[in-house]
Amino acid sequence: MIMTEKQYVVAILGATGAVGTRMIQQLEQSTIPVKEVHLLASSRSAGKTLYFKGEPVTVEEARPESFDGVDLVLSSAGGSVSAKLLPEAVKRGAVCVDNTSYFRMNDNVPLVVPEVNEDALADHNGIIANPNCSTIQMMVALEPVRQQFGLKRIIVSTYQAAGGAGQSAINELKREAKEYLDGEEMQAEILPVKGEKKHYPLAFNLLPQIDVFEDDGYTHEEWKMIHETKKIMLGDKNSPDIKVTATCVRVPVPIGHGESVWFEVEDGNTPTPDELRTAMTGFPGLVVQDDPASQLYPQPQTAEGSRDTFVGRIRPDLETKGAYNCWVVSDNLLKGAAWNAVQIAECLVQRDLVRVPAGSAAKFN
Amino acid sequence: MIMTEKQYVVAILGATGAVGTRMIQQLEQSTIPVKEVHLLASSRSAGKTLYFKGEPVTVEEARPESFDGVDLVLSSAGGSVSAKLLPEAVKRGAVCVDNTSYFRMNDNVPLVVPEVNEDALADHNGIIANPNCSTIQMMVALEPVRQQFGLKRIIVSTYQAAGGAGQSAINELKREAKEYLDGEEMQAEILPVKGEKKHYPLAFNLLPQIDVFEDDGYTHEEWKMIHETKKIMLGDKNSPDIKVTATCVRVPVPIGHGESVWFEVEDGNTPTPDELRTAMTGFPGLVVQDDPASQLYPQPQTAEGSRDTFVGRIRPDLETKGAYNCWVVSDNLLKGAAWNAVQIAECLVQRDLVRVPAGSAAKFN
Repeated sequence: MIMTEKQYVVAILGATGAVGTRMIQQLEQSTIPVKEVHLLASSRSAGKTLYFKGEPVTVEEARPESFDGVDLVLSSAGGSVSAKLLPEAVKRGAVCVDNTSYFRMNDNVPLVVPEVNEDALADHNGIIANPNCSTIQMMVALEPVRQQFGLKRIIVSTYQAAGGAGQSAINELKREAKEYLDGEEMQAEILPVKGEKKHYPLAFNLLPQIDVFEDDGYTHEEWKMIHETKKIMLGDKNSPDIKVTATCVRVPVPIGHGESVWFEVEDGNTPTPDELRTAMTGFPGLVVQDDPASQLYPQPQTAEGSRDTFVGRIRPDLETKGAYNCWVVSDNLLKGAAWNAVQIAECLVQRDLVRVPAGSAAKFN
Repeated sequence: MIMTEKQYVVAILGATGAVGTRMIQQLEQSTIPVKEVHLLASSRSAGKTLYFKGEPVTVEEARPESFDGVDLVLSSAGGSVSAKLLPEAVKRGAVCVDNTSYFRMNDNVPLVVPEVNEDALADHNGIIANPNCSTIQMMVALEPVRQQFGLKRIIVSTYQAAGGAGQSAINELKREAKEYLDGEEMQAEILPVKGEKKHYPLAFNLLPQIDVFEDDGYTHEEWKMIHETKKIMLGDKNSPDIKVTATCVRVPVPIGHGESVWFEVEDGNTPTPDELRTAMTGFPGLVVQDDPASQLYPQPQTAEGSRDTFVGRIRPDLETKGAYNCWVVSDNLLKGAAWNAVQIAECLVQRDLVRVPAGSAAKFN
């Protein structure tokens, strides 16, 4: 008897964006047996032609009926689109991996970085959330530390690329840079936050605002790093067992987030930097680039295009036992978004979890 | 009887550099009664014409005899030049304010940020050191906190501008940016560190190396932030009374350093963010720019050209009592270098300290 491998109908929602186009590429290179691909976007992009494995695919306007017959949805079309359409997809039996923040803190939705908490997929209800880009790369770098030495506290400062705000923000950065070099006034229309009252140039500048401000003075991006870390590592978004605080800053880099991470391991543990490097080396998806003698350390320009997360500058805080500094870089559009989503989909396929459990749809009404 | 105001002969050593040209400007705008100005540089720049208060001044090659008859020296020509020439200046009775790192940790040399430890000038021996740019702005932002609430610990991540490595590094950043936008390969020749084996592009990138690496994995820039902070705030470069750790990163900004600073006040103190803002407001040289509702926060492009240090994003660490995050920006070539040096010179003049105490020269032999 010959087993026929199961093949999947995959829909990509938000297919024309910076993350969507990379979801197509990552799906092409994935182990998922794809029977058919549907590329969905807003009405504005409908009719456009994109390619999947060399074959032309016409972009369709995303509607509830677009998900009829679809097995898997990869979504990156904005929170409000996910809010409206993913419950419709689940109702039609499609399992959704959502890159927006809309469902991340929903107790019915696993928030997954496969290297860290793949097992959380087992209980899914049709929607799995992809964490925030800046959270994902920090999780990959710190999980081997947590597993071997425990993790008490994280203090992180981010250096985030324009690409986290979409292709239009990358275009704005490049246009502003040209204006600056030509001696013209820079025209900011998107950053720091699309739709906010004020816009500031990012080119040759630093903007300490990513996403909107909360009442407590933190930005929503910082809030995400704090609560997503706890949900991914501990399964509880408010757990006090790992203290996390974050400062998120946009820097004039198109692609590739940097993070300066200070962390404290469990009391009584004082691994040497070599022991930390050994723990990190070989951890899936993580590459140690840490050799000061040869000036080897992670940089956005060398990380761009890779699925991996890179860590370096690993050294102890010289005055606090059990505390360390390191520097983490990853391609925020790949591991931070498109690849992590496709990787979750690969895990779902491998574990035969591409099915919506009965009663799931009601959980998102 | 009419008092004749004392007038000073001032020499600027390294007058043609990014800091030196700004020392000229800051001296022009200072309260120091200048009788005569000598502009000194390497033989390569000798003969060049610069201007002081509209009058042409010919740049002379710096030699020991250049300091004959000089009262005050402002120096920013590199550590090896200061090492060689400043003892010669002191021997000739000139008081030197040195912007290089060469004398900073010398026990005979006060390391001064006037807003913080002006009194340390009283015991000078002819050489006063200007701290590192990234240290100075952090001191100005945190000193009012230290005065009112005490300071136990600082964890800082810097976002440092190319200008910290001189005008040639600013030029390199701009040239690389143009190459990148034109689709050409970027040619790095200076950054991260002049004279190091490897050079990497800074444009649209991040370089987690400023200055050379120490044996413990820290860069010398990070070492400076740690030990200079202790010497300025506590008078002791190795004091354990304030714990400091730092990660220094070069970012593609021409002028204006950013710093993400986490700090912990003395046990028992838990000021509200408003109390911190009140403590900081009115502190000399410090401007609070902190209103999330109107998207007001410090940025390099709005700080450039100002003598002030700007602080914002002040908020408590939500899980550690008495700990806070903030964001500090200053023009690294002004408060971080030229202005702080001229400001020290102003203090010396006001306190009538422009004289070399007997026996000083021997301390630098």
